[in-house]
Amino acid sequence: MARRLIMDVDTGTDDAVALMFAALHPDLELLGVTTVNGNVSLAATTDNTLRVLDWIGCAGIPVHPGLTRPIVRTDFPSARHFDSGGKDDPHGTALDIPEPSSRAQAQGAVEYLIETLRGAAEPVTLVAVGPLSNIAAALALDPGLTGRVDEIVIMGGGHATANVTASAEFNIWADPEAAAMVLAAGFPKLTLVTLDATHRAVITRDACRALAGLGTPAGTAADRFIGRRIDAYSGGAGDGAAPVHDVVCTAYLVRPDVVRTSPLPVTVETAGAATVGRTVIDTRPGAPEPANAHVALDANAELLSGLLTDTFARTL
Amino acid sequence: MARRLIMDVDTGTDDAVALMFAALHPDLELLGVTTVNGNVSLAATTDNTLRVLDWIGCAGIPVHPGLTRPIVRTDFPSARHFDSGGKDDPHGTALDIPEPSSRAQAQGAVEYLIETLRGAAEPVTLVAVGPLSNIAAALALDPGLTGRVDEIVIMGGGHATANVTASAEFNIWADPEAAAMVLAAGFPKLTLVTLDATHRAVITRDACRALAGLGTPAGTAADRFIGRRIDAYSGGAGDGAAPVHDVVCTAYLVRPDVVRTSPLPVTVETAGAATVGRTVIDTRPGAPEPANAHVALDANAELLSGLLTDTFARTL
Amino acid sequence: MARRLIMDVDTGTDDAVALMFAALHPDLELLGVTTVNGNVSLAATTDNTLRVLDWIGCAGIPVHPGLTRPIVRTDFPSARHFDSGGKDDPHGTALDIPEPSSRAQAQGAVEYLIETLRGAAEPVTLVAVGPLSNIAAALALDPGLTGRVDEIVIMGGGHATANVTASAEFNIWADPEAAAMVLAAGFPKLTLVTLDATHRAVITRDACRALAGLGTPAGTAADRFIGRRIDAYSGGAGDGAAPVHDVVCTAYLVRPDVVRTSPLPVTVETAGAATVGRTVIDTRPGAPEPANAHVALDANAELLSGLLTDTFARTL
Amino acid sequence: MARRLIMDVDTGTDDAVALMFAALHPDLELLGVTTVNGNVSLAATTDNTLRVLDWIGCAGIPVHPGLTRPIVRTDFPSARHFDSGGKDDPHGTALDIPEPSSRAQAQGAVEYLIETLRGAAEPVTLVAVGPLSNIAAALALDPGLTGRVDEIVIMGGGHATANVTASAEFNIWADPEAAAMVLAAGFPKLTLVTLDATHRAVITRDACRALAGLGTPAGTAADRFIGRRIDAYSGGAGDGAAPVHDVVCTAYLVRPDVVRTSPLPVTVETAGAATVGRTVIDTRPGAPEPANAHVALDANAELLSGLLTDTFARTL
Ligand SMILES: [Ca+2]
Ligand SMILES: [Ca+2]
Ligand SMILES: [Ca+2]
Ligand SMILES: [Ca+2]
Repeated sequence: MARRLIMDVDTGTDDAVALMFAALHPDLELLGVTTVNGNVSLAATTDNTLRVLDWIGCAGIPVHPGLTRPIVRTDFPSARHFDSGGKDDPHGTALDIPEPSSRAQAQGAVEYLIETLRGAAEPVTLVAVGPLSNIAAALALDPGLTGRVDEIVIMGGGHATANVTASAEFNIWADPEAAAMVLAAGFPKLTLVTLDATHRAVITRDACRALAGLGTPAGTAADRFIGRRIDAYSGGAGDGAAPVHDVVCTAYLVRPDVVRTSPLPVTVETAGAATVGRTVIDTRPGAPEPANAHVALDANAELLSGLLTDTFARTL
Repeated sequence: MARRLIMDVDTGTDDAVALMFAALHPDLELLGVTTVNGNVSLAATTDNTLRVLDWIGCAGIPVHPGLTRPIVRTDFPSARHFDSGGKDDPHGTALDIPEPSSRAQAQGAVEYLIETLRGAAEPVTLVAVGPLSNIAAALALDPGLTGRVDEIVIMGGGHATANVTASAEFNIWADPEAAAMVLAAGFPKLTLVTLDATHRAVITRDACRALAGLGTPAGTAADRFIGRRIDAYSGGAGDGAAPVHDVVCTAYLVRPDVVRTSPLPVTVETAGAATVGRTVIDTRPGAPEPANAHVALDANAELLSGLLTDTFARTL
Repeated sequence: MARRLIMDVDTGTDDAVALMFAALHPDLELLGVTTVNGNVSLAATTDNTLRVLDWIGCAGIPVHPGLTRPIVRTDFPSARHFDSGGKDDPHGTALDIPEPSSRAQAQGAVEYLIETLRGAAEPVTLVAVGPLSNIAAALALDPGLTGRVDEIVIMGGGHATANVTASAEFNIWADPEAAAMVLAAGFPKLTLVTLDATHRAVITRDACRALAGLGTPAGTAADRFIGRRIDAYSGGAGDGAAPVHDVVCTAYLVRPDVVRTSPLPVTVETAGAATVGRTVIDTRPGAPEPANAHVALDANAELLSGLLTDTFARTL
Repeated sequence: MARRLIMDVDTGTDDAVALMFAALHPDLELLGVTTVNGNVSLAATTDNTLRVLDWIGCAGIPVHPGLTRPIVRTDFPSARHFDSGGKDDPHGTALDIPEPSSRAQAQGAVEYLIETLRGAAEPVTLVAVGPLSNIAAALALDPGLTGRVDEIVIMGGGHATANVTASAEFNIWADPEAAAMVLAAGFPKLTLVTLDATHRAVITRDACRALAGLGTPAGTAADRFIGRRIDAYSGGAGDGAAPVHDVVCTAYLVRPDVVRTSPLPVTVETAGAATVGRTVIDTRPGAPEPANAHVALDANAELLSGLLTDTFARTL
């Protein structure tokens, strides 16, 4: 039986690849998608999500718009971490596929999460690959929701690797209080896919060409999205490679060995001047706190690449 | 026409007096009540709220239970600021009136706030006299709700007066991120009734006796609740007086001159070691930031006392 | 026998008045002066201090230059709180009296404090009316110096009154770590003269005229310095009055009743976003921490005014 | 000509090895040693330092005791990070060599640093392998001292490796304000040897046996001190290895290639709840801030081992 999941996204090129993977892989059943402010504004992440699902023939999967800003900060993030739309912007505002014909649901993301999780006969998997504002808001309204989730898989944080600041990864930094709360919420299983892992699972231009060669909508779009990422990471200077962070989470659901995880204590710094939004991962032998997360710090690029090719060969 | 309001409470002896005032005063129409974790647990604040409304014959006013903890902190507040149930506890856990026969609504506080405010033909007044977790959560889900509220009146904070720490008042301290967000949310009008005001509007034992002498359910209960407060503040040592913080807010709705307000800039400290939960009120001449609150720092005790007696003489 | 004291100053108009008071009052023996970065740069506070002592014929009192910046912050304060030299600047850069002919000592302030306190036969009084960088640095090198001081009198902080931010007074804010350390250092007696007190001890234009009428160098200078303060506080609009913060400390040494003090627990916030540099004074009845300071929150303006006239009538 | 250096130490087993290296290596001239509170109390770090210098016949090198606590924190560190004297304590309180017959200088560390650096004809090298309290205090008194130092080499911090907390290394954590200030002070060259480097330069039991076999005082002591470290790190369970952090700094002076450094921006978090004392090292390509440190994140264990054997074969 396919694993039933809800994705929470701030689409974004890598979210787009992750969404296509979840929608197309036969072992996964994507029940619905919630969108959140993050890489771009909520309006744009919602529009992009609809584009992706339309493009691959999955317009029937409902999309519920969520929070337009962090759960408690009204002034954060104050600025993007790269010039939006510029050459080093791996996302752009609107994804380079046609405008959607389908529309977002009237029901908000948080209401949808609460209603769906409460109503599910079996626990559902959450895959959260944007700032954790929606998930935290749902837990604020009903802390017991953790018991309706078999596993939450989060793309976020880093140990030796950072992006938006010297200390922090964007998703966690963009709503640090939400992230701190989700990590402390007591989910039965929480898997954290960090930048340390995703930067070891880069997709190459050769792999992009193979995706393009599939001739499927997903293959075509994945080539385009990942190609943009490679351009942004390499300054457009040739035959590079780039991480496609979010898809590591959905790939992990069908092939856990795409990452290597360790059970470790993780908290989020919300008060530091230079460290706000940092995932504090205690890798010391004999760490005093109990583990609350399965932390992926390494990944298998070749395996990921193969999974993408296999999955994006499919059409619906 | 009566002013239509929703109260958000963590009942609590002073919340109880404020509720009775709102329910009984002819110029006010109490549409519904939302409860929140605060003075006591959510279960107890909800139970107490139902007790109060039942006792005065207002069982028809719906009560919606809200957040069981702060909006983002899972470990805060770590402890009460007085020994629960002890002699210096001005509240106790269960109010000293009969158990309720009515029951709380199934719909949660945040959902109720969103639905009611969105559906109201005219803006509604919010009176928030507990930690601001529910209000902040509703705003997180829909920042546009501020436009559906004509005024929010908050009991919280202090300038020269504090209670739970040397810097902070309990309601703000108990969920500082929620308070910071509500103060920054952009309500058309926000009135902050601080401890500086409520400590100048103390109710005396003589006034309690007058309330008891009314022979009404509200008079009887008010005497009991305020008497408990006077005992707690004075150590039971005789003919004292005590502030009844929350009722200053509802009294202000019908007689604005019960307090004296100034338009001032107010923020909430969320990061300080010794100042977390402090309302930072800029009283300097020529303060650089624009005012975002009408801050009450003074009050008229005699006027308040008279309003209580007049209002609690009523029955429904 | 006169009380022997060392003053630590960031001269400044009010420091200047305090220095003249200490140098001229027969009950006080000003052993030496240490200067610190504060109202203006160290070079200017040192120059101003020499001007003042020269002007009143006290060139023999040694002046030792101290820290050029806070004890640990290299980027703080990032800016003055008023436009230096502007109309609302109560100090100016150079005091409006002649350039000094005497020179500062080669020995630094911290070395002087350590050597003098260690070598004193009897405990000495410290009067610190600028940022506490020098005092904290001396204590860092020798925490035992507290035992060589009978009392330290500090101008700093506030409870309901602030100046440089909505929360903080300049001296404490300008080096919050130093202030926190000095308040926690365990001096046998620490008296904190806050803005709440100094703002109740304003000197009027009439009093200035009386000082000018004395015909003494001190009277003439005091009129000029205080006059400038009154101009700055009133926008030059006429017959106002202004606090002369620092002189309240030296006046207190000879007439303790110039202020009203209470023993209270005081800490300094060093980590708050909106409250950095605030003196957290626990005025609650039954405050849990022991008192570490005698805090002046009120003062007697008339008494202060009379003390100034009496003292500045003197010449040396 | 030998490189002239002053060491600032909190001896400690690894400080002891570093001291012996600096005192014995022919290319280094150890002018003096300053001691600081850290691994153990100042009294113990001073006593241990004297023991080491006496033991190897260098009693003529002056030892100046410094700060007994952090530069501004009076309550930090609140506790040691391992049970002092216990089996997992790699230091113990007193080093296992005879009590010293020589004595510490009367002049304090900070005064010595200021006087020596000001008086030196040529710039001097500082090697700081304990909390940075002394160095920061000297800079507070005279920021211009940085111009009298050709290079400061610091053992402290970590990027992917931590010890005292999940985020921080002991030396930096134990006086974070001092460390932040030293890193921002503008030294002409600052080299930071982190835990990431020292954990890659472990010394094995075999190497210890070789040191013991030298038959020199330094060889004997080094075997004993490093052996204790290996016991502590391995739980005494056999033929392990351990980092000897501080000696990597002195070894670097004579063989820079014992580490691999990169010029990187480094700050110290002083305000974070979970990250206080963390060295925030910006390893991102295109980091926006300029580099202020040459950061060693890797080291050559074999080269270090050989340097120890060669150097400790010497006697004076
Ligand atoms: Ca994403
Ligand atoms: Ca309440
Ligand atoms: Ca001053
Ligand atoms: Ca050391």
